[in-house]
Amino acid sequence: MINIAILGFGTVGSGVYEIVRQNGENLKKKINNDIDIKYILDIRDFSSHPESKLFVKDFDIIANDPEVDIVVEVIGGLSPAYDFTKAALAAGKHVVTSNKELVATHGTELFELAEKNGVNYMFEASVGGGIPLIRPLMQCLAANNITEIYGILNGTTNYILTQMIKKNKSFEDALSDAQAMGYAERNPAADIEGHDACRKICILASLAFGRHIDCDNIYTEGITKISLDDVKYADALGCVIKLIGYACTYGKDKVFARVSPMLVPVSSPLAGVDDVFNAILVNGNFVGEVMFYGRGAGKLPTASAVMADVIDIAKDVSVQKRMTWKKAETDIALDINDSESVMFVRIKADDIESAKKKVITAIPGAEFVCANLLDGEIAFLTPKQTEKSLNNALATLDGVVSVIRVKQD
Amino acid sequence: MINIAILGFGTVGSGVYEIVRQNGENLKKKINNDIDIKYILDIRDFSSHPESKLFVKDFDIIANDPEVDIVVEVIGGLSPAYDFTKAALAAGKHVVTSNKELVATHGTELFELAEKNGVNYMFEASVGGGIPLIRPLMQCLAANNITEIYGILNGTTNYILTQMIKKNKSFEDALSDAQAMGYAERNPAADIEGHDACRKICILASLAFGRHIDCDNIYTEGITKISLDDVKYADALGCVIKLIGYACTYGKDKVFARVSPMLVPVSSPLAGVDDVFNAILVNGNFVGEVMFYGRGAGKLPTASAVMADVIDIAKDVSVQKRMTWKKAETDIALDINDSESVMFVRIKADDIESAKKKVITAIPGAEFVCANLLDGEIAFLTPKQTEKSLNNALATLDGVVSVIRVKQD
Repeated sequence: MINIAILGFGTVGSGVYEIVRQNGENLKKKINNDIDIKYILDIRDFSSHPESKLFVKDFDIIANDPEVDIVVEVIGGLSPAYDFTKAALAAGKHVVTSNKELVATHGTELFELAEKNGVNYMFEASVGGGIPLIRPLMQCLAANNITEIYGILNGTTNYILTQMIKKNKSFEDALSDAQAMGYAERNPAADIEGHDACRKICILASLAFGRHIDCDNIYTEGITKISLDDVKYADALGCVIKLIGYACTYGKDKVFARVSPMLVPVSSPLAGVDDVFNAILVNGNFVGEVMFYGRGAGKLPTASAVMADVIDIAKDVSVQKRMTWKKAETDIALDINDSESVMFVRIKADDIESAKKKVITAIPGAEFVCANLLDGEIAFLTPKQTEKSLNNALATLDGVVSVIRVKQD
Repeated sequence: MINIAILGFGTVGSGVYEIVRQNGENLKKKINNDIDIKYILDIRDFSSHPESKLFVKDFDIIANDPEVDIVVEVIGGLSPAYDFTKAALAAGKHVVTSNKELVATHGTELFELAEKNGVNYMFEASVGGGIPLIRPLMQCLAANNITEIYGILNGTTNYILTQMIKKNKSFEDALSDAQAMGYAERNPAADIEGHDACRKICILASLAFGRHIDCDNIYTEGITKISLDDVKYADALGCVIKLIGYACTYGKDKVFARVSPMLVPVSSPLAGVDDVFNAILVNGNFVGEVMFYGRGAGKLPTASAVMADVIDIAKDVSVQKRMTWKKAETDIALDINDSESVMFVRIKADDIESAKKKVITAIPGAEFVCANLLDGEIAFLTPKQTEKSLNNALATLDGVVSVIRVKQD
């Protein structure tokens, strides 16, 4: 018998409960053992729940019960999830989590603690909801050096951008829609400012490149400045605007990660990823491009990913999986200023010809695009250069309306 | 030290050789052990190869060498791959294969033989080239009952259809192009008649549903009858035509599998899968829709998938993976006649109104579409019905030009 304890009976926690209760027979077959929920920890009152006897408010009951094999931490946030996770691992219990903030912030320490105690700390559900990602990256692409990752990692912003692109709604209206649909929080900053995507690309990049990249070292730009005019230009260029979590290796020892809106050519499989769907495009040196697509959030998709980890552990609780990363010994993150980009730029221009001259002087090789799309402005694509040199050049120009990075084919 | 033997030094075999030689250090880190190629079996002469000493022509040398841990069978076809695989498994060696024909035909027996001998028979590379599929299906979606699979499983036909859709080329011209590009064989029947896709959906369906489905029980229709007129209608309906390997569960005990062209709505992520790329869309009862996308063939992508299996085994050669299926005790395959479809139908019609009346009489609920798209014919969508009843009804109509199944949203 495998006993699990669920920490947090919110959206994901109740989804895990539902899957175990609905699909128990099937799970039993897959793990060749009985599996049951022994405790559910939640500070709220669930005394009228049909299985109210499972609910506890004191974490020590779980930590001290030797019958608990796997702790499912789906509380979210750092506190008290961090302390509970450390205590569970120290007590020799496997921990499975959907908590991206905790994995991105303290993953390295928690992996070490798990290893020391002969257990696993697993986090498939922390990125991409139900989309299989961690095992494909670590096992199926194991023969490859992963060189690049492009991810649509946040469903809320992808829904907003899709509404702007397909329904011609303003950012503000699309955000209100997303809130009305329950896709965005009343305080939407974590989504629209890119922080959620930042944690996810932090996890993916750390895993793919084997060493931890600190979220603080990941340049993060949200979608709040994207306008319908930008969407119109993107369309004229055969692109759509997506919020992209990007990571790549750089030279021999460096890695680079960034979250920002990008112009994505419609020929890219990422361009067709709409609404709240997520997708992660990975480039491996042997396999080429592969992409994983699905629902990046939601009760049952996320719980499905949690249960994948639970099943994997439950098949043999004595096995350590090693789907982790190490602490970076040196500063491995390339600074955004030293990274290279192609930028799409719009600037105000009363006098088109003189404005163009200034652009060419500031940025030799700039390519003007979408002539006359909007009155009183010009638009151009820069050559690929370091962001430092591009920003220095752009600082010499007046009336910059918008600057968006461009995904190269 | 883990020793592998490669059977067949063709495209995939030389790719496996290349990955081991190029990426050896990385592989060593991943498996925590040295890995090397001890033999390469090929009947051709490789005496001028830089590592000619590795080449053997006698399989018994490999089968009888206790130092060989893993046999990589990338010969393809049934003979001699079937005999070699049985002998290797019987000799207690793990076998990794890219051979879809062998897995689809004799997989059940070979899994049993592997289990009896305490080894693994693994086949990630047999479907979808380098796209991670087998582990995601078996491990990451383990909590789900998989209800449906839609796969673009054959790059050749997808290239041909993409040329027809995007470049307005006829089937014959697109096929010639595919042959010129090396995407299609001189005898292209296995691809264009759907047999290759049939083996792949056989493997996916058997794995997803746990019991073997015989290829002979999978209705298979290729793309040879698809015309540019069909493509034009599809476009008018907001669809593209794709060759789809489809499988689903049916009722309590039955499963259904089929290969046929389908009209796929452009809103589906499958619609954007172009050229030689493959994609597999899976529906799980908890996770919803997830899709896997990438290169479905080619030397290094396929070798990358072979090496994923090799690495997985090499990490601990004593572990049995159980990513297999069982023999079906009863006939589990639903007959195509009993399956339900929506069909798109074009018929010749000199007198439009009288033709429409006949259609409505034969198929109540038929919905006429794309009026006047082509002179002298009408087109309609049928209601969802068993194929038997639809075919009986269509048999009463004169001048049927084409019939294509429609993927429902």
